[in-house]
Amino acid sequence: MSDKLNRLKEIVGEVSDLGRAASVLGWDQQVNMPPMGGEARGQQLATLGKIAQEKFTADEVGTLLEDLKKEYTDPETDEGAMIRVAARNYDKAKRVPSSFIAEQAVAASKAFEAWVEAKSKSDFKIFLPFLEKNVELVKKYVSFFPPADHPYDVLLDDYEPGMKTAEVQEIFGNLRPKQVELIKAISEAKQVKDKFLHKKYNEEKLWKFSEKIIAKFGYDFNRGRQDKAPHPFQTSFSVNDVRITNRYEEKNPMATLFSAMHEAGHALYELGVNPAYERTSLESGTSLAIHESQSRMWENLVGRSLPFWEHFYPDLKKTFSSQLEDVKLKQFYKAINKVEPSLIRVNADEATYNLHIMLRLEIEIGMVDGSIRIKDLPEIWNTKMKEYLGITPPNDAQGVLQDIHWSYGSIGYFSTYALGNIVSAQLWEKIRKDIKNLDDLTRKGKFEKLREWLRANIHQYGHKYDPQDIVQKVTGSKIDSAAYVRYLTKKYSDIYDL
Amino acid sequence: MSDKLNRLKEIVGEVSDLGRAASVLGWDQQVNMPPMGGEARGQQLATLGKIAQEKFTADEVGTLLEDLKKEYTDPETDEGAMIRVAARNYDKAKRVPSSFIAEQAVAASKAFEAWVEAKSKSDFKIFLPFLEKNVELVKKYVSFFPPADHPYDVLLDDYEPGMKTAEVQEIFGNLRPKQVELIKAISEAKQVKDKFLHKKYNEEKLWKFSEKIIAKFGYDFNRGRQDKAPHPFQTSFSVNDVRITNRYEEKNPMATLFSAMHEAGHALYELGVNPAYERTSLESGTSLAIHESQSRMWENLVGRSLPFWEHFYPDLKKTFSSQLEDVKLKQFYKAINKVEPSLIRVNADEATYNLHIMLRLEIEIGMVDGSIRIKDLPEIWNTKMKEYLGITPPNDAQGVLQDIHWSYGSIGYFSTYALGNIVSAQLWEKIRKDIKNLDDLTRKGKFEKLREWLRANIHQYGHKYDPQDIVQKVTGSKIDSAAYVRYLTKKYSDIYDL
Repeated sequence: MSDKLNRLKEIVGEVSDLGRAASVLGWDQQVNMPPMGGEARGQQLATLGKIAQEKFTADEVGTLLEDLKKEYTDPETDEGAMIRVAARNYDKAKRVPSSFIAEQAVAASKAFEAWVEAKSKSDFKIFLPFLEKNVELVKKYVSFFPPADHPYDVLLDDYEPGMKTAEVQEIFGNLRPKQVELIKAISEAKQVKDKFLHKKYNEEKLWKFSEKIIAKFGYDFNRGRQDKAPHPFQTSFSVNDVRITNRYEEKNPMATLFSAMHEAGHALYELGVNPAYERTSLESGTSLAIHESQSRMWENLVGRSLPFWEHFYPDLKKTFSSQLEDVKLKQFYKAINKVEPSLIRVNADEATYNLHIMLRLEIEIGMVDGSIRIKDLPEIWNTKMKEYLGITPPNDAQGVLQDIHWSYGSIGYFSTYALGNIVSAQLWEKIRKDIKNLDDLTRKGKFEKLREWLRANIHQYGHKYDPQDIVQKVTGSKIDSAAYVRYLTKKYSDIYDL
Repeated sequence: MSDKLNRLKEIVGEVSDLGRAASVLGWDQQVNMPPMGGEARGQQLATLGKIAQEKFTADEVGTLLEDLKKEYTDPETDEGAMIRVAARNYDKAKRVPSSFIAEQAVAASKAFEAWVEAKSKSDFKIFLPFLEKNVELVKKYVSFFPPADHPYDVLLDDYEPGMKTAEVQEIFGNLRPKQVELIKAISEAKQVKDKFLHKKYNEEKLWKFSEKIIAKFGYDFNRGRQDKAPHPFQTSFSVNDVRITNRYEEKNPMATLFSAMHEAGHALYELGVNPAYERTSLESGTSLAIHESQSRMWENLVGRSLPFWEHFYPDLKKTFSSQLEDVKLKQFYKAINKVEPSLIRVNADEATYNLHIMLRLEIEIGMVDGSIRIKDLPEIWNTKMKEYLGITPPNDAQGVLQDIHWSYGSIGYFSTYALGNIVSAQLWEKIRKDIKNLDDLTRKGKFEKLREWLRANIHQYGHKYDPQDIVQKVTGSKIDSAAYVRYLTKKYSDIYDL
């Protein structure tokens, strides 16, 4: 039997190599590529994707998996988990015809262009027919799979394997009223001043400070690097080459620090996966939500906490003495945690962010099950914004047209952002039980215990456990928003004197 | 028939995509990769190479080529040339078993390690058994091919398609005595002072100056970029993404300028290939010698000429006012052309460089045909150094062990460096006939006519013509050293008052 396993590993290994190579090309495209290089790069990426798909969906792989599934039945073993995950990926890959993938790519490309124009003119109608086409194709995609409880389940499963739409709806349903209530209370409290955060900060100094922080987190520059790119992201070329990107925003300079922490959180996950899983179906983090739980934990639960800045603020104040001259630690801490309902998701603060997500999830579900007509989107969007955040977008560009996702036909993963926040708080409660002196360590700038806890409990397993299972395994319960509500309430009660 | 051509183009296009992707990975490895990333990167490159080889050597390709060769018989047409070159590449790829490639890779890896140790200890004996193994494998490689006039022909053909060892020997045979004589005359003349070239020059300013120069050459930063790497090289990811690397040497700061010109010369070749050849067998420059003729032309015939510095020297002097305070243009010109027989090839000047190459070619031919015993190499090396350059290496590290090439089993391409010099002078004589005011244009920093001449006569054809054929086509004769001798003699008679 081990011959068959070796053969499967060989094929999966080559498919992984092709995927990692594509990641290098994608990273280079964002970070280095000269302006004219795009067309050929697109062709090269298409070829790598096509060959990987051909190799992975070969009948031989199906036969091997069928045989191996019978042999390695225990999903707790590494082999059992590898085969389980590979078989699921194989099933998905086999169901979707390559002609459909090509059709979707063409539609996405046209829709993206329309979205750019629609957004620049703030006119949803320009985007409407293309979004309708994208949604139609998403429904077609769903039709390739066996009937689920809800058609949206099929889409969600690509990002959160094993999770059901109903589960997410329940989690969000519990959270939403509490979060709306909290924001209302905050809006009635005395507001936080943060003008000093929006002064001019030197880019190079910020960059170096960001690297000082993430080096303390344990991001190893022998196994990664931080580069400038239009958008911050993390990407892995192997367990020993996990890179992040970052940017400098003149109007929001602190974003350089928090983005570095966020992406380093993702990177620490990938750097912590068991090296024995390299070139197998288990080599990466298990889902977007679990990944986001890591990035949000380092960015928010660590990076926006008072103990963290008790350690770093003196150094920051020294580095930016003119900007922070009269700003006390507590003032700074409050400012970086300022809550303000706003129109744009990516600029949203910790307390309001999830509401942006819930709104999108509800609309996505409605689009997919047909209960929402696409042409009604602007109105629905604006109504929900008013209901959840108390504000109304003045136009489509700042409303329904703000996100790129739907333009390339990507429907199903907005919720993972909010689930990540929720999971991060669940893990955090467990961590605080296991590491009693966590705040003291943070005050000393020591993160090794936290990082090693995450590695031992989450990172090392890579893709071995599905998201709900790993949360259950670590915390004793499935994904649940109670811890997150406790965390938000405590934090903001203190900051806003509620 | 056009269906078959399209199918061939599809396969060759994918093979090209895989090769270009590998180039991106290779570039990244030199320029960006964090220290720990090497092992996985090696695996990824091996997979890309393996898949490209499998795709290209598929029986389907052989059948297509057989059929298409009958249809497209005119090698002057693009289709005819594509098929001719693809068929030759196919034949070569089919002859060499993949097990042999693997064996050679393992031997090379061991030999490389031994070479590093041997060089550091300056002890050829450590390297000897590994070099013997490498030569044995090279002979085995030759045995996969039909008998040639000389076994070395097979090796040379991989770099200079269609060229024979005897041709190169004749070219070098004519050149050597004249070049030895010239150097002797120079060594007896009044020597040139160049101390001011070895002062400390600011790295960033040099880098910017190098980019100013190559931008004037016409290197387009929308289609390329210059990055720092341990060694300067040029690499292409498409006709619109051709990159170069460079370095800063504290002891030899001007190398940053000349390396940039050299690599930009390579890059202009690749940037000038007919875009219709993309993803075909014609997409790159035709041979290493023709490539080197381009890089050496921009570096030496342009970049080390007096008219060139008549344009750039005032600016250079302003940029490095303290270093060049008392240095007049003519002094500077002489200094950058200083001739001094030296031990190390890569540091050799224009007048002595070729002799380093001839020595290596003679030894390579002797190793391959068995007329030289590997263990005698140090002695043979030192004897030839004395004969050609009048100096004797004090140890193996500065003698026979200086180059990396043999350590990874690469035998057959040293000669292309010298051939490049020779061809550059042949082309130069023709260019001076076609562009009467070349020196005036150079004095004004205008290089468009030269670049466009090269594009029209050389670059655009990519791989369409073999090296001897393109030289014949452009200059009316095959590769011949007469023009190079005239060039060297004139230049150095002036500089050294011979």
